[in-house]
Amino acid sequence: MSTSSPVSALRLVLIALVVVLAGCAGEERPASDGAAETSAGDYELDPLVARLFEPIPDEAPAPEDNPTTEAGVELGHMLFFEQKLSRSGVVSCNTCHVVGAAGVDHLALAVGEQGRQGPRTSPTVYNAAFLGSQFWDGRAATLEEQAAGPIQAHVEMDLTPEEAVERLRESGYLPYFEAAFPDEEDPLTFENLTRAIASFERTLITPGSPFDRYLDGERDALTEQQRAGLQLFTASGCAGCHNGVLLGGQGFARFSHAEGGEDRGRAEVTGHEADEYVFRIAPLRNVAETAPYFHDGSAATLEEAVSVMGSAQLGRSFNEQEVADLVAFLESLTGEFPLVTFPRLPR
Amino acid sequence: MSTSSPVSALRLVLIALVVVLAGCAGEERPASDGAAETSAGDYELDPLVARLFEPIPDEAPAPEDNPTTEAGVELGHMLFFEQKLSRSGVVSCNTCHVVGAAGVDHLALAVGEQGRQGPRTSPTVYNAAFLGSQFWDGRAATLEEQAAGPIQAHVEMDLTPEEAVERLRESGYLPYFEAAFPDEEDPLTFENLTRAIASFERTLITPGSPFDRYLDGERDALTEQQRAGLQLFTASGCAGCHNGVLLGGQGFARFSHAEGGEDRGRAEVTGHEADEYVFRIAPLRNVAETAPYFHDGSAATLEEAVSVMGSAQLGRSFNEQEVADLVAFLESLTGEFPLVTFPRLPR
Repeated sequence: MSTSSPVSALRLVLIALVVVLAGCAGEERPASDGAAETSAGDYELDPLVARLFEPIPDEAPAPEDNPTTEAGVELGHMLFFEQKLSRSGVVSCNTCHVVGAAGVDHLALAVGEQGRQGPRTSPTVYNAAFLGSQFWDGRAATLEEQAAGPIQAHVEMDLTPEEAVERLRESGYLPYFEAAFPDEEDPLTFENLTRAIASFERTLITPGSPFDRYLDGERDALTEQQRAGLQLFTASGCAGCHNGVLLGGQGFARFSHAEGGEDRGRAEVTGHEADEYVFRIAPLRNVAETAPYFHDGSAATLEEAVSVMGSAQLGRSFNEQEVADLVAFLESLTGEFPLVTFPRLPR
Repeated sequence: MSTSSPVSALRLVLIALVVVLAGCAGEERPASDGAAETSAGDYELDPLVARLFEPIPDEAPAPEDNPTTEAGVELGHMLFFEQKLSRSGVVSCNTCHVVGAAGVDHLALAVGEQGRQGPRTSPTVYNAAFLGSQFWDGRAATLEEQAAGPIQAHVEMDLTPEEAVERLRESGYLPYFEAAFPDEEDPLTFENLTRAIASFERTLITPGSPFDRYLDGERDALTEQQRAGLQLFTASGCAGCHNGVLLGGQGFARFSHAEGGEDRGRAEVTGHEADEYVFRIAPLRNVAETAPYFHDGSAATLEEAVSVMGSAQLGRSFNEQEVADLVAFLESLTGEFPLVTFPRLPR
């Protein structure tokens, strides 16, 4: 697969088009539950739903320059839990992206080295392999590029690349790098560290949710309320941004709820005024498990997040029933988490 | 089993007696490697070695008032990794007692909440079930009592028992406490939290080391050098303190190397002058994997630790060969670590 590129004008146009299409579809079939039923027992997936969404595949694609290998994943697994990659020696990738907690820390704002608070919520590591770009502002194009960030960030792990490499060398990591990158003369590099972590993260995917099974033709995988929520999700315009494999995570959108706040979103990366309060569209996979919500963790519950999105992004106030239906649908996006062992780490 | 009691005068007398016995044995058979060999192929474990040491059993005994159950271990497994048990939400038991790193953090001094540094090295959680008392100063008699400490310590996790219980209740832990303590009306208590963590810790044991196999009659489980190290270990008096299942971890001894330092050891608990610079005798299981050494992490390598112990505790200067032999023997104490999964945590 090609690595993701930052949002383009074309993508924004396409997103806008999908919003319109979704809106139209909603107008046409207000009573539909997302599936066309010609007679009892017959079931054909609504072509709009089929066009808008995709199940999570069983494996995440890898870029050509970092194919997924067993040795690479094994090394990345160790590095993901390696506390030596932080200055104090007690913060690891897993500190904020807890594999046993849907890949998040459940904090409004991330906490790292020396208890320092970061400016944003920790996004989940699960299914990050399918994101169009990484971080809330999309400032990294790939998982490899992302992995280089937190290790160096003052508020997260606070090491230089040289320090990180030196610590790993002293700790007996060389044989593991040699196994993962057998063609390289000096494989213990910071770049290879990021490649190994990315390889491990490509195994952190959650196929098999009720919604995936529904997309695969199992109509009863969703409850009646969840199907009503799906219908509202497409008809009201949510799916205009939240579509594809992750129901989001590809393009960017201005988040009017954030306007006037200190965090100017993507503008802090691009310097463009047009990117003020623009954030990457949040992916919604396992969203029922990843509270609190938004870039600043300001919504404690899924109900609150849905209501805010309705008013801030769609200009409509969802009533109680609609919120309940949407939340029920979002709960169908919880997939099967892989069993992750705690790796044996070198001294 | 009865729960452990703090050191008694009787125990100290017994320890002194063992020192004398070990010394005598050394006098009698200076060339022995710890095994009596009457002819080629014959092998009988040296009665002194058999008397001094015990293999790690396949299961750790539990106190009558906290029998080990599947539901209790499952809950304890979750709590051991639960970061919500720290004020910031990013420190767990596993932060300092890393299950993938032989149960330690490899730091000289522990680091906890807000990057605060503790006064001592994190001791390993592996085989703590067999310790006579908990902490470097033995201030807790049982694993249950130990578990209550770090959660409340300002430099570790910094919560009150009430806060800890409230956080667990809010996070959906109630059903897990109900399953683990089915006979109790209100099972979500701080005491039960410590009981569950203790139950999980009783599964963190490492039988099957080369030394255990040797004790079980497999002479070749130790190399020739390791057998020479064992012989020196008993003859020189190391085994006077470092004996039993864990080769230590039961009684207490003055650590002359610490004298004059800020950390007055057990005296800080008992207030007795006689306990100044007295620490629990370090257990030596998996010691090759748990650097750095001593209560203050001041010895970076096993070689250094062995040399210091010789001069500080036995009044003798081990030569290079003796240090190498002793280290080789200590390396035979590395057992088989269980595979620990990262538990799925409630929201």
